[in-house]
Amino acid sequence: MRKFMDEDFLLSTYTARKLYHDYAEPMPIVDYHCHISPREIYEDRAYGNITEVWLEGDHYKWRQMRSNGVEEKYITGGASPREKFQKWAETLEKAIGNPLYHWSHLELKRYFGYEGNLGGESADEVWELCNARLRTGLTARKMIQMSRVALICTTDDPADSLEWHGKIARDDSFPAQVLPAWRPDRAMNLEKSDYLDYLEKLEQASGVKVDSFAALMESLRKRMDFFAAMGCKVSDHGLAYVMYEPASEEELERVFVKRLQGGHISAQEERQFKTAFLTKLGREYYKRGWAMQLHYGVKRDNNEKIFRECGPDAGIDCINNYAPSGEMTEYLNGLAKTGELPRTILYSLNPADNAVIGTVIGCFQDSEAVGKIQQGSAWWFNDHREGMMQQMTSLASLGLLGNFIGMLTDSRSFLSYTRHEYFRRILCELIGSWVENGEYPADERSLEKIIKGISYENAVRYFGFQL
Amino acid sequence: MRKFMDEDFLLSTYTARKLYHDYAEPMPIVDYHCHISPREIYEDRAYGNITEVWLEGDHYKWRQMRSNGVEEKYITGGASPREKFQKWAETLEKAIGNPLYHWSHLELKRYFGYEGNLGGESADEVWELCNARLRTGLTARKMIQMSRVALICTTDDPADSLEWHGKIARDDSFPAQVLPAWRPDRAMNLEKSDYLDYLEKLEQASGVKVDSFAALMESLRKRMDFFAAMGCKVSDHGLAYVMYEPASEEELERVFVKRLQGGHISAQEERQFKTAFLTKLGREYYKRGWAMQLHYGVKRDNNEKIFRECGPDAGIDCINNYAPSGEMTEYLNGLAKTGELPRTILYSLNPADNAVIGTVIGCFQDSEAVGKIQQGSAWWFNDHREGMMQQMTSLASLGLLGNFIGMLTDSRSFLSYTRHEYFRRILCELIGSWVENGEYPADERSLEKIIKGISYENAVRYFGFQL
Amino acid sequence: MRKFMDEDFLLSTYTARKLYHDYAEPMPIVDYHCHISPREIYEDRAYGNITEVWLEGDHYKWRQMRSNGVEEKYITGGASPREKFQKWAETLEKAIGNPLYHWSHLELKRYFGYEGNLGGESADEVWELCNARLRTGLTARKMIQMSRVALICTTDDPADSLEWHGKIARDDSFPAQVLPAWRPDRAMNLEKSDYLDYLEKLEQASGVKVDSFAALMESLRKRMDFFAAMGCKVSDHGLAYVMYEPASEEELERVFVKRLQGGHISAQEERQFKTAFLTKLGREYYKRGWAMQLHYGVKRDNNEKIFRECGPDAGIDCINNYAPSGEMTEYLNGLAKTGELPRTILYSLNPADNAVIGTVIGCFQDSEAVGKIQQGSAWWFNDHREGMMQQMTSLASLGLLGNFIGMLTDSRSFLSYTRHEYFRRILCELIGSWVENGEYPADERSLEKIIKGISYENAVRYFGFQL
Repeated sequence: MRKFMDEDFLLSTYTARKLYHDYAEPMPIVDYHCHISPREIYEDRAYGNITEVWLEGDHYKWRQMRSNGVEEKYITGGASPREKFQKWAETLEKAIGNPLYHWSHLELKRYFGYEGNLGGESADEVWELCNARLRTGLTARKMIQMSRVALICTTDDPADSLEWHGKIARDDSFPAQVLPAWRPDRAMNLEKSDYLDYLEKLEQASGVKVDSFAALMESLRKRMDFFAAMGCKVSDHGLAYVMYEPASEEELERVFVKRLQGGHISAQEERQFKTAFLTKLGREYYKRGWAMQLHYGVKRDNNEKIFRECGPDAGIDCINNYAPSGEMTEYLNGLAKTGELPRTILYSLNPADNAVIGTVIGCFQDSEAVGKIQQGSAWWFNDHREGMMQQMTSLASLGLLGNFIGMLTDSRSFLSYTRHEYFRRILCELIGSWVENGEYPADERSLEKIIKGISYENAVRYFGFQL
Repeated sequence: MRKFMDEDFLLSTYTARKLYHDYAEPMPIVDYHCHISPREIYEDRAYGNITEVWLEGDHYKWRQMRSNGVEEKYITGGASPREKFQKWAETLEKAIGNPLYHWSHLELKRYFGYEGNLGGESADEVWELCNARLRTGLTARKMIQMSRVALICTTDDPADSLEWHGKIARDDSFPAQVLPAWRPDRAMNLEKSDYLDYLEKLEQASGVKVDSFAALMESLRKRMDFFAAMGCKVSDHGLAYVMYEPASEEELERVFVKRLQGGHISAQEERQFKTAFLTKLGREYYKRGWAMQLHYGVKRDNNEKIFRECGPDAGIDCINNYAPSGEMTEYLNGLAKTGELPRTILYSLNPADNAVIGTVIGCFQDSEAVGKIQQGSAWWFNDHREGMMQQMTSLASLGLLGNFIGMLTDSRSFLSYTRHEYFRRILCELIGSWVENGEYPADERSLEKIIKGISYENAVRYFGFQL
Repeated sequence: MRKFMDEDFLLSTYTARKLYHDYAEPMPIVDYHCHISPREIYEDRAYGNITEVWLEGDHYKWRQMRSNGVEEKYITGGASPREKFQKWAETLEKAIGNPLYHWSHLELKRYFGYEGNLGGESADEVWELCNARLRTGLTARKMIQMSRVALICTTDDPADSLEWHGKIARDDSFPAQVLPAWRPDRAMNLEKSDYLDYLEKLEQASGVKVDSFAALMESLRKRMDFFAAMGCKVSDHGLAYVMYEPASEEELERVFVKRLQGGHISAQEERQFKTAFLTKLGREYYKRGWAMQLHYGVKRDNNEKIFRECGPDAGIDCINNYAPSGEMTEYLNGLAKTGELPRTILYSLNPADNAVIGTVIGCFQDSEAVGKIQQGSAWWFNDHREGMMQQMTSLASLGLLGNFIGMLTDSRSFLSYTRHEYFRRILCELIGSWVENGEYPADERSLEKIIKGISYENAVRYFGFQL
């Protein structure tokens, strides 16, 4: 029996251990997609207690607490930080086989030096230890530096001023790059009730009066130019579902103006608008050399009661399984046929789509980049040992795993860089098992290249980061 | 090489064996969902031969026999019991990797003491041995008691008199509780040709004239009161597909009255009626503290030729893969937003829905119960080693496996309690592998709680059984 | 650690090795579905270099090269064979975990005696060695005979003259049978722009004027008679999606005549026409004792840019995930209810359909054949270790693995018979693991029957081949 989470955690063979410790572990981190706050980096946020770090905004943990029958006041409500931590610790004990069990213990080990098991009974000990450590200067920047993070892409709205990115860039004391990433969901989701309010913000940020679809595009191009000047190289879209329904420019203008005037937009008009929006932006990304991320298959804010209390990102999202592969290929073809398909990364929240994506990306590869079209790393609800194993096994079976751009945290927390460690261990376990089993030669030079590539180098090259 | 089905069957590590033999194996059985006949329990059915026990109503076995090219007369037709048994034995040999291979041999071992392998050549020996054993008093009650079953929920129609449940309850000589479970499919499926005949039965049972949708609900409420008085704590719905299409009360009354008058019901009207039916009943379950089971994704009676000969439940059902997650969440939200969502258990017949369900249930958990919304155990076509491993791995990756309410037989046979043994072995193998691999601490107290909980205690607490 | 691809490649247990070497390895090959050219067999094609063999038409390899950022001129363009080979060798290094890595090295070992690892650096050595070996008479026929192939079914259009099949049949010097298989996709795909051109070909081949749907069927029946006379026993359909939409004969005639006159065919009319086409042909197969293969779930030619340059089968196809199980069962029931359902093999390109298919086939088995309705072997994008493991595990869990008709190459290359070796190793590994783990008895007679059956004997019996 192996000790819980020892130095060879998840590494069951000699080759897996060798690959991890020699090649994967020493590589720096490029975290090309996350949701941390650039302001908190710039201001070097300090924390009063571990509940602030762990439970303030982490809807992964909130879900599990609700699932353990914990009252909302101990989750997002007014209970004390110590009480909330207790409820979390009691919940964690039951999370056998859940990534949160591993993430939490990896974080306790790497940042706080705690080697025990967190549960209801050890909660007090862990509370004291973590808070003491936080008081000794374990701030946001310290966490990033301890994790050897070379570059971070945040997630930013087109109307955002990128003020904090600018300040970080001008601050020589902080070695990691912090780049904006372009996430124009609010400009696309015309079905939302606050859409017109949003357009006003966009007008202010861009200086363009958004009175037509063409003007919307013009305002976004202006903002893209600004984002590019601030170092942006990555865009990102969150899509509830996959759609492709082309329409004429006239039709699109008609739909957009109707929305401006407060008219009702039908489901078909929504699909038409979004198809055009994604296509036009795709072309812009191509021109600018940006990569395009499409995250699809999320149905958000499903529980009205909690949504009214907590707003979005409250742990009440699920998989949307409407994702016709036919429309995805038509969308990509729409860009490829004119030679304007940017580097693209597809993520579905539904693991049953792994093979579908693996075959779709294979249709649109070309010589403009190595691994130009990628299947993104196992995402959100799939970001666990099984999910990563399945995503990488599917990817390997259908394409070139050697070109995979690897892991990202997708996180709101400065402690979650251990997810890169978790990923790299699983990667080395998988590849190690193939080598040990005689399915790939024990050719160290080739394996080194593959492991370093997936851990770090492929992403640097793919996005064109300057490090 | 391990001996076939020895005492450590399916338990490949030290920890798995320890968890099973120390904690899982000794627990009694709560079988909260099955299809056995309460009359046969009350009358303590005796069997003339093993064919009566095994092949009389077991459509799992019928499918495999047809799949082996066996003529229908040896399956559901007029051949002799000995001939039918021979055909089954010959079929079983080819069922390598099939749960029937394991179930059959576990049953032979546990109830008949047979330690060999059943196949065409050993059929005669097994026939003699089983029949001799049956003659020594291996009756329905004896099978239940040998299996240490503490409680059984049968599956009952609202119009059922529950006569046999009453008789069993009044019979002090039988220690197991036998409770009814509420399955109102026939009251919901207004598209069926015999729907009006069914409503007459319901009128007789409830004493309510069903001349409107409101009256239908009234009659069902009366029957629910009666079921509750008889100890019912669980409801169950079998849904071909997932739907959510709200309509006004007027519209619903119009549809129902049209049906009463023999008019044609459109697909949309069917969805509207069923949405309202499920929502109204969900509220009733909430009021009564009943759990609600939703079994979806079955397309039934697909082969007209066999259906004409054998009727329903003849082994001609398959997965229906129409199951939009969006509509499922809207249905659950419809109940949750007014605070009327009962404890709910979701089962899909499609294993590709595992992750979908795992994310849906996480959106609706609250403090009214620990693990209030559950993903049901791998069901029917998924009730095998792979299916259970996948369901539990998915559940663990997405939620709290520690709160899982575990196994049920879903069976028509008194021998099938060994499926609880099968499940518990697989559970211990899975959790044991994590512990041995350093993925969860070897903390015996915590593991004991998890194993006993999933084997027995969680279900008792969840349903509120009095044992 | 095991040596890369030694004689026990993929066989990790004693039982797996014994089953493979004693029972699976010695069996001849029946390749009942492939795309090789009968002309090349008859003319005993010789090859100038390994690029001709490997890269001339192999879209599996093309995809991976594009995925590695290789320019089209080195893939399907004008670069020299040596340059193309270099690019392929460099691509292969990154294909860790991909079946092409295994297939390529198995082919190098079995046909060329190369024991090293192909990559950018060894490309020159391998180029020389393979070409030298090709010059010593490693021709198409030699490859077939080295592989101990007893029978091949090619894939042939109804309008094909089958000239080369006839010549091969009359050539006593070649021991393998080469039979045509009936693939009438072009006669069914009335939405294609060249449909009318195709009908002309069919008219010429059949001597029937195709001026009605009835006449189309008549012309196809004539061709089926001819195919049957040439030894055909297998039909095959490639379907983008699953459909069942019955229509009256009058309606069908109206649709067909509209198409003849160049009118627009709606999506519904297309589904109606195809439903009728498949149903009518299904009945013909039943009459003739032919097996019917349905390959569904492919969206073809997704990248217009490459399609314009390279035409079909250029490595730009993907999974189409529109496959309602309801319509598949209705189609099969449409044939079964009149007793006209032929032996049928279902293949979906989407691995998420494994369980769906496993439950669909179980509804339509009968005593006309052992394992009458089959799930086909893991196909195309699923033809790899994981895909085969999943397909066989699913099949075993849901049906009788012992009756499985096993592997086919589905290939355009004379070297790909090693895929049967690959499959048999995986089969023996899977079954061996069950036996070693105590999940099936170590009963050698029964295991021998199962392994030989799946490797060879079941297919011979199922299709009624005379060997």
